Amino acid sequence: MAKSKFEYVRNFELDDTCLRNCYIVVRLDGRNFHKFSEQHNFMKPNDNRALGLMSRSARSVMEELEDITIAYGQSDEFSFVFKRSTTWFKRRASKLMTHVTSQFSSSFVYYWKEYFGEQPLLYPPSFDGRVVLYPSNHNLRDYLSWRQADCHINNLYNTTFWTLVQNGGLTTTQAEERLSGTQAADKNEILFSEFNINYNNESPLHKKGTTLIWEKVNETTTKQIKRPDEEETEITVTRTRKKVTSHSCDIIGDQFWDEHPDILENDQC
Amino acid sequence: MAKSKFEYVRNFELDDTCLRNCYIVVRLDGRNFHKFSEQHNFMKPNDNRALGLMSRSARSVMEELEDITIAYGQSDEFSFVFKRSTTWFKRRASKLMTHVTSQFSSSFVYYWKEYFGEQPLLYPPSFDGRVVLYPSNHNLRDYLSWRQADCHINNLYNTTFWTLVQNGGLTTTQAEERLSGTQAADKNEILFSEFNINYNNESPLHKKGTTLIWEKVNETTTKQIKRPDEEETEITVTRTRKKVTSHSCDIIGDQFWDEHPDILENDQC
Amino acid sequence: MAKSKFEYVRNFELDDTCLRNCYIVVRLDGRNFHKFSEQHNFMKPNDNRALGLMSRSARSVMEELEDITIAYGQSDEFSFVFKRSTTWFKRRASKLMTHVTSQFSSSFVYYWKEYFGEQPLLYPPSFDGRVVLYPSNHNLRDYLSWRQADCHINNLYNTTFWTLVQNGGLTTTQAEERLSGTQAADKNEILFSEFNINYNNESPLHKKGTTLIWEKVNETTTKQIKRPDEEETEITVTRTRKKVTSHSCDIIGDQFWDEHPDILENDQC
Amino acid sequence: MAKSKFEYVRNFELDDTCLRNCYIVVRLDGRNFHKFSEQHNFMKPNDNRALGLMSRSARSVMEELEDITIAYGQSDEFSFVFKRSTTWFKRRASKLMTHVTSQFSSSFVYYWKEYFGEQPLLYPPSFDGRVVLYPSNHNLRDYLSWRQADCHINNLYNTTFWTLVQNGGLTTTQAEERLSGTQAADKNEILFSEFNINYNNESPLHKKGTTLIWEKVNETTTKQIKRPDEEETEITVTRTRKKVTSHSCDIIGDQFWDEHPDILENDQC
Repeated sequence: MAKSKFEYVRNFELDDTCLRNCYIVVRLDGRNFHKFSEQHNFMKPNDNRALGLMSRSARSVMEELEDITIAYGQSDEFSFVFKRSTTWFKRRASKLMTHVTSQFSSSFVYYWKEYFGEQPLLYPPSFDGRVVLYPSNHNLRDYLSWRQADCHINNLYNTTFWTLVQNGGLTTTQAEERLSGTQAADKNEILFSEFNINYNNESPLHKKGTTLIWEKVNETTTKQIKRPDEEETEITVTRTRKKVTSHSCDIIGDQFWDEHPDILENDQC
Repeated sequence: MAKSKFEYVRNFELDDTCLRNCYIVVRLDGRNFHKFSEQHNFMKPNDNRALGLMSRSARSVMEELEDITIAYGQSDEFSFVFKRSTTWFKRRASKLMTHVTSQFSSSFVYYWKEYFGEQPLLYPPSFDGRVVLYPSNHNLRDYLSWRQADCHINNLYNTTFWTLVQNGGLTTTQAEERLSGTQAADKNEILFSEFNINYNNESPLHKKGTTLIWEKVNETTTKQIKRPDEEETEITVTRTRKKVTSHSCDIIGDQFWDEHPDILENDQC
Repeated sequence: MAKSKFEYVRNFELDDTCLRNCYIVVRLDGRNFHKFSEQHNFMKPNDNRALGLMSRSARSVMEELEDITIAYGQSDEFSFVFKRSTTWFKRRASKLMTHVTSQFSSSFVYYWKEYFGEQPLLYPPSFDGRVVLYPSNHNLRDYLSWRQADCHINNLYNTTFWTLVQNGGLTTTQAEERLSGTQAADKNEILFSEFNINYNNESPLHKKGTTLIWEKVNETTTKQIKRPDEEETEITVTRTRKKVTSHSCDIIGDQFWDEHPDILENDQC
Repeated sequence: MAKSKFEYVRNFELDDTCLRNCYIVVRLDGRNFHKFSEQHNFMKPNDNRALGLMSRSARSVMEELEDITIAYGQSDEFSFVFKRSTTWFKRRASKLMTHVTSQFSSSFVYYWKEYFGEQPLLYPPSFDGRVVLYPSNHNLRDYLSWRQADCHINNLYNTTFWTLVQNGGLTTTQAEERLSGTQAADKNEILFSEFNINYNNESPLHKKGTTLIWEKVNETTTKQIKRPDEEETEITVTRTRKKVTSHSCDIIGDQFWDEHPDILENDQC
C-alpha cells in the first residue's frame, strides 16, 4: 500500500495566514435561528435563557483560546477578538475560525440544559463563522461599535414590535406596518405614550448586548492549619486569578476602554 | 446613534470564494483527542462507540449540506467532499468550513448519549477544519486514497501495538521499541505467529474506515384504504428516496467507483 | 546598524501560490491604449505595426518563460497559458504575473523601432496583468474561445464602423448610431451590399487574432568538411529545434487542437 | 458565434483586494541582474548610470500612480509605497503590482539612452514584483529601514571587495576569502588603514540609496504683459507645484520623517 504515491495531494492545501499586527475577529452567526427560536419557543423580543447560553458558550471559547481578549455578543451572533500579536495556530484563518466555531457549537449543546432545563433541544444547531482583520485600534473599536449599534437598533425595533403585539393587540402584520418608516424617536414615543414604557429603563443586557473580557479577580480561601505542638489555626489565602467577566455596558464611548486599558494593544507597535 | 458611521468596517472582510470546477474538501480533526480519548476511557486500539458517534455526526452534516456527495472518516478525522459544481454559500471557503465544523461539533455532543449511554461527556470537545480544492477526479481519488492508506497504516500499527500490550504483556514503551523500524509485513507476522491473529480478518470498519455516500433506497409501506362502497383493502406503496449509507470497503481501487458512478462528475466539464 | 531588528517585516509577505494541476493564465491589457493609439496615429480599424509589435513582445515572453505553452492576443491584450504542471517561480501568482508583464512591457519599447521605424514612441506605455486559474481542458479552451469570440465581435464592429466613416463619409457619431442595435448579420450585410466587402475575405490576423505556440522546426545547414587525404565535401545537417510559431486560425473548433495535441495536458492527471 | 456560452469563464477570476487601512508596498527586483550588469559592463561596485536609470524609471512610476507617497531604491530593486487609504484600482493587488512593474520596465528601456548614451541595450530586461501590506506606521518605517540597512551592508561589503580587487590587486576569490567572517568595523578598518579610504566620505547615493517623495516646489516664471494704453511690463508668476524629489539621506532615524510629516498617515485612523 504505497502511501507516498498519494501524499502529493497535501500540496494542494493553500496557505491562509492572517496578516501580522492586525486584530483578528471571528464572528459567528446562528444558521436559520429564526426557525430555531420558534421551534424552541424563545420568548419575544428577548429570551434570557438563549442569551445566557450564548454567553456561556462564548466563555467556553475564551477559556480554550486565551489570546481572545474581548468578545461581544447579541441576538444569535458573537464576535471574538484575537490580539494583534497572537500566534495561535500560526495565525491561520481556517484554524482560528473553525476552532472558535467548533468550541462554541459543542458548548451550546453541552450547556443547553443549564439554561433550558427540561425543555429538550430538538436537533443540533449550526453556526457559521468568518474572519475579518482590523489593522488599527480605531478600526477595531468601530467594528465593535457597529455591532453594538446594530444591537440597539434591533432591540428598539423588536421591543416596540412585540409590545404592539403582546400588549397592544396588533397582529404581527399590523405591527410591521405601524413601524414601517419610523425613526428611533418615534419608537421611543410609541413605547412611552402608548404603553408607559421608558426604553431607557429596559434591561442593559438587551440594549447593550454582552461583552466578555478577562479580568483579575481576587479569590480568598481559608485553610485550617495545624502545626506540631500548636493549636489548629485558620489562615486566609488570597490569590489573584484571571477570569472571564461579563458586562452589559456601552462600548462605543471611551469610558469602557479607559477603564480596561489592557484590551487594546498600542497602535504604535 | 449613527450606525452608518461604523458600517465602513464591513469592507474589511475579504472574499474567499473557492475556484470553480474544483472539488471542495473540508477535513475535520479532533483537537487534543489523544487526551479526550483517555479521559473518556476509549477502548484501544479502536472504540466502536466513538467511531459510531463520528459517523453519526458526519451523517448529520451530509443531511444538512446536500451538495456533499461523499464523506470519509477514520480515527478522529472526517473529510467531506462538495461536488465540483456546488454553489452552496456561493462557494465561500469560510462559510463551507465553519458550517461543516459547527454541525459536526454540535452533533457530536447531541448524539453522545446514543453511543456512550450513561457515560458522561466531561466537556465540550473541539474540532478544527480546513478547506482543500482538487481540480480533477484523479486528484480527488488520490486524496481519499491518501486518507484510507493512512487509516490502514495506523490501524495495523495500533492493532499490533495494543496486542503486544494487552495480550503480550509488554509495557507501552516495550511495545514501541519492538515496533520501531518494522514494516507492514513484520507487523502482520507478529500478529500471526505470536498471537494467531490474521490481520485480514480484522474488522473492515477498523481497516478501511467509514465511507458515507447518498444512495437511492426503496422504502415500502402499506396503507389501509377504504373507498365508498368497497371493502377496505391494503395497498403497498414503494417510494425511492435518497439516503446516506455507510460503507467500510476499499475506496482506493476502481471497484467502488465503478459501482457508484454518480459520485464523481465528468472531468471533461 | 542592526539589520536583524527590522527583518521581522519579511513575515508580512503572504503566500499566493496557485492551486496545483490548474492551467495558469496571465492576461495583459494595455492601459489607456485608446489614447495611446491616437497619439501614435494607429491605422483604423487595425494597425498591423501595433499588432506585430504585440506579437513580437509576446514571443519574447514565451522565449523567457518556457512553461508557457500557448499565448493568444488581439487588439491591446495578450493571454499567456502556463501548463498545468508548471513549477516556475513555485507557482507564485505575483511572480508569474509580474514577470510576464515586465518582459512584455520592456520588449514593447525595445522592439518598437522594428515595427514603427522612425515614428517615435512618445512615452513608456503600461500594461496591467492578472492571473486566472482553469482546472480543466474544457475550461481553458472556453477561456481562449471567449477571447477569440471577443476578437471577432470587436473586429466585425470596427471594420464596419471605420468603413462607414472612411469609405461611406459618415461622421463617427453617425456611424455609431447606424450600428446601434445591429446584429452580426446586419454588419455583414452593410459591408457587402454598400461597400462590396465580403467580411470572410478580411485578414485572418484581424478576424482571428494571433495564436503563438511552440513547434518543432527542422533547420538545415550545410557545412564544408575536409578530412585528411580526402577532397573537401559538403554535408547537410538537419537539426530539430523548438520555436515559437504564429497562427491566425480558428481556435474555437477542434481542428486546431487535434493538430497540436501537445498543448493540452491530460485531464485525467 | 455564441459569445455568452464562453463568458462563464470570467467567474474563475478570484478577488485579491488588499486589506483596507494598510500601506501597500510594491517591491521590484531585477531578474538575473548579475548577468545583465556584466553584459552591460556596469562599473563596480556601483554604476551611477544604472542607478540613475533606476531612479528615472521609479519617478516615471510615481508620476503615473499618484497615490505612491514614497519610493526607495538601491541596487537593482525599488519599493513603492501606496498610501493607506488609496483606492487606486480598487486596491486589487494584481493591478497594483503589474502596473508598477510594467511602467517601470517600459521606462527602463525608454530612458536607457539618457543614461547609457550610445552603449546599446542588448535585450529587454525583466523585473519581478510583489505586494506586501503593512498595518502601522511603525511597520512601514521598519520595512524601509530594513531595505536601507540592507543597502548599507551590501555597499560596505562591495566597496571593500572591489577596492581589494581594483586597488589591492587581489583576485575576486582572494577578496572573498579576505572578507569572509569580517564585521563592519573590520571592513572600515581595511578601507582606512590599507587604502586610506574613509567609508563615511563615500557617496551618500551609494551608502543610503535613493528616496523619492512628492514635494511642493515653487516655480517662478516671468511674463511680458502689455495692457492697452500701458507700456509693456514684466511680471513674475510663482506657482506651487508638487514634484517628485530625490534624496540620498538616512530614513531610519526620525529626522527625515519629522521634516516630511505628510508621507505617513495617522495611525489613529
